Amino acid sequence: MVLMRAEIISVGTELLVGSILNTNTQFLSQELLKCGVDVYYQTTVGDNPGRVIDTLKIAMDRSDFIILSGGLGPTEDDVTVESFARFIQKPLVFHAPTHRAILRRLKLRDLRMTRLIAKQCRVPQGSLVLENENGTAPGILYKAGGSGAAKWFLLLPGPPRELGPMFKKRAMPLFFRVSGIKKKRLLLRSVKITGLVEAQVAQKATDLLRMKPPLTVGIYARPEEVELKIMAKAINEKNAAKMTQKVEKIIRGRFGNKVFGVNEETLAESLGHLLRKKKKTLAAAESCTGGLLSHLITETPGSSDYFRGSVVAYDNRIKSGFLDVPQALLKKEGAVSAAVAQRMAQNIRSFFKADYGIGITGIAGPSGGSPQKPVGLVHIALATPSKTFSEKWRFQGSRSEIKHRAAHHALNLLRLALLQRVN
Amino acid sequence: MVLMRAEIISVGTELLVGSILNTNTQFLSQELLKCGVDVYYQTTVGDNPGRVIDTLKIAMDRSDFIILSGGLGPTEDDVTVESFARFIQKPLVFHAPTHRAILRRLKLRDLRMTRLIAKQCRVPQGSLVLENENGTAPGILYKAGGSGAAKWFLLLPGPPRELGPMFKKRAMPLFFRVSGIKKKRLLLRSVKITGLVEAQVAQKATDLLRMKPPLTVGIYARPEEVELKIMAKAINEKNAAKMTQKVEKIIRGRFGNKVFGVNEETLAESLGHLLRKKKKTLAAAESCTGGLLSHLITETPGSSDYFRGSVVAYDNRIKSGFLDVPQALLKKEGAVSAAVAQRMAQNIRSFFKADYGIGITGIAGPSGGSPQKPVGLVHIALATPSKTFSEKWRFQGSRSEIKHRAAHHALNLLRLALLQRVN
Repeated sequence: MVLMRAEIISVGTELLVGSILNTNTQFLSQELLKCGVDVYYQTTVGDNPGRVIDTLKIAMDRSDFIILSGGLGPTEDDVTVESFARFIQKPLVFHAPTHRAILRRLKLRDLRMTRLIAKQCRVPQGSLVLENENGTAPGILYKAGGSGAAKWFLLLPGPPRELGPMFKKRAMPLFFRVSGIKKKRLLLRSVKITGLVEAQVAQKATDLLRMKPPLTVGIYARPEEVELKIMAKAINEKNAAKMTQKVEKIIRGRFGNKVFGVNEETLAESLGHLLRKKKKTLAAAESCTGGLLSHLITETPGSSDYFRGSVVAYDNRIKSGFLDVPQALLKKEGAVSAAVAQRMAQNIRSFFKADYGIGITGIAGPSGGSPQKPVGLVHIALATPSKTFSEKWRFQGSRSEIKHRAAHHALNLLRLALLQRVN
Repeated sequence: MVLMRAEIISVGTELLVGSILNTNTQFLSQELLKCGVDVYYQTTVGDNPGRVIDTLKIAMDRSDFIILSGGLGPTEDDVTVESFARFIQKPLVFHAPTHRAILRRLKLRDLRMTRLIAKQCRVPQGSLVLENENGTAPGILYKAGGSGAAKWFLLLPGPPRELGPMFKKRAMPLFFRVSGIKKKRLLLRSVKITGLVEAQVAQKATDLLRMKPPLTVGIYARPEEVELKIMAKAINEKNAAKMTQKVEKIIRGRFGNKVFGVNEETLAESLGHLLRKKKKTLAAAESCTGGLLSHLITETPGSSDYFRGSVVAYDNRIKSGFLDVPQALLKKEGAVSAAVAQRMAQNIRSFFKADYGIGITGIAGPSGGSPQKPVGLVHIALATPSKTFSEKWRFQGSRSEIKHRAAHHALNLLRLALLQRVN
């Protein structure tokens, strides 16, 4: 089979009322893409047998590989397996290995088998059953139709921690094995850029964004960062890697220091790599970011190697009494000023015996602004072994967005300084 | 019209490849539910005119109110408006007010009108046009079919900050006005519980979860909290409020102090209300949470009224040199110990002149654990004006999850202490 069209169906009324965010669909889409399987539709339907069957009919008409998630559990609301069995007109049959696996799980927790739990041991006749390592409901892989127009169905449990491992470790390997479909080598590599908005990146990468398969580039914007995603399809991993490397080199050539990382790498991680490489340490004095900068830095495992710690000086008395910012300076310049940010950076650097000190002071809002010092005004200072300087920003957005933007720019300020070998 | 079936269609290849999470669909589902409109299906389709039209056909067969989001922008990939016009067989016509609005926006940024931007001034004949306050692409409301079997279509821009305000402020008020459909009074009230897992809450609320419309209760679990969502449909707001109040009272009676808030209220906000009410202040000394506790507290506007600040003592030398935790204690008990957590809480309380001090020390992992002190071990201490005590926890999960769980339990420890009038 050359062309394979996949479709994801999420079953769950909780998704239709917006009570939870559909992260399973994003996960499955990403994983299918990596296997070279293209997703054409994503549908969500409630826990209603009639509508689940209607949705299956539509999906079978337009797709070859249909992945359902959710509704496999033990409650009365879980109708996916029964609905699917009715749709393919097969009876539900008892699956002994699943029964034994559930009994083992129940025993560990000192629980007894109930009628509802036992429901999960019944699967449509002809199913390939996928063991659930992290829960009771098994997954199901089912082939319908002849070999010419085969349609594949995959039923997965809804809880992400059950769905994820089952999909990656069991379902996809089994699918490629029994279907005889060749897994394509799709290599994805994201190059992450900061300091430019999406339109600016797009303009400098127009030619790349127009490339056609098997080698394409997509653009995605996130707050404070733009991602250029290189996708290469090739007969083997080595060739695909060569293709992406070529494009990555072009992107790095054009965007220089504005490229801060690849794939899942965060700006804080990228800064962490630099600090570790240069054997330098960092301390921070935060006011309006309220601890967020430190939180972002300490999300990276091993950050204790280069992050000494910080003082969140939320109250002005902490700035003077604890960070030794002179009261006269606070009075003359105001707490939100370049002079105070710089003094915070210098003092935290020296108190915490770090190579670099960051000082942030600003107005996160929504109140506390004035015409001279509006909400969103933030001073970010960096103290290095030889000098201290600061930047003045005026950020837009909610309180939380202003905190995030300020923390992001503080990380980037030090990152750029380290790249420019500032001492 | 009595029964109104809504369907949400997201247009965007970036959703099909999993590059972004579909938060628009969740937002629209929640907002429609609040207006008493039930969503039956959610579909995602790529930026492909043929497939967008196929999806519209299916939607028109099964739904009365079809909301499309995304694909209204100026790029070649934005095909929603053209596809919709082809589907309803109407020509695209020039909309002068939109043209003027776009010119005004461009002028502010010193930009010129281009062919692609101008594309956004053309709407299907017969559309009601919705102004976009936060971007260039206007929204469109369109009625198809006779009054007996009227079908309504709403086209919204994809960026959440454009879609949200347009939907709430313009689209829904206009829809109810021109359609003559009566807005039902659906009141939602979420009661938020911490300290119990979903199964425990479900067991204590079995009778409530079995209630039938017009008054129902749903249960939703999030990390460290469980939400009981009361939904009441009534002829007017007053009656709906009475209905929800009755159930909320029952829930509060059963769960007592474990109820920490309602609706969007976070645990940090709930703690903030208590501190403000009692005119008390707080300071924190964080180790393994790395600033997250302070970040969560300072997400609440006005938190500077009760939050003095914190020290993130990531490095042991900061614990001793800056927080005055005796070196002998660190050596004897280890940095991750009840004694050190308590000393951190006491000292930050006294240094920062706060009524309450929180101290947190633990191992967030993934490395740094030992058989005696495994990853996830966290000591959380509270120093009050009269005493100091601590709790020992063993959290599961990733580094980030352990940080969040520890911060959550620290907030809850102080919240419970304030409720129990601890001094």
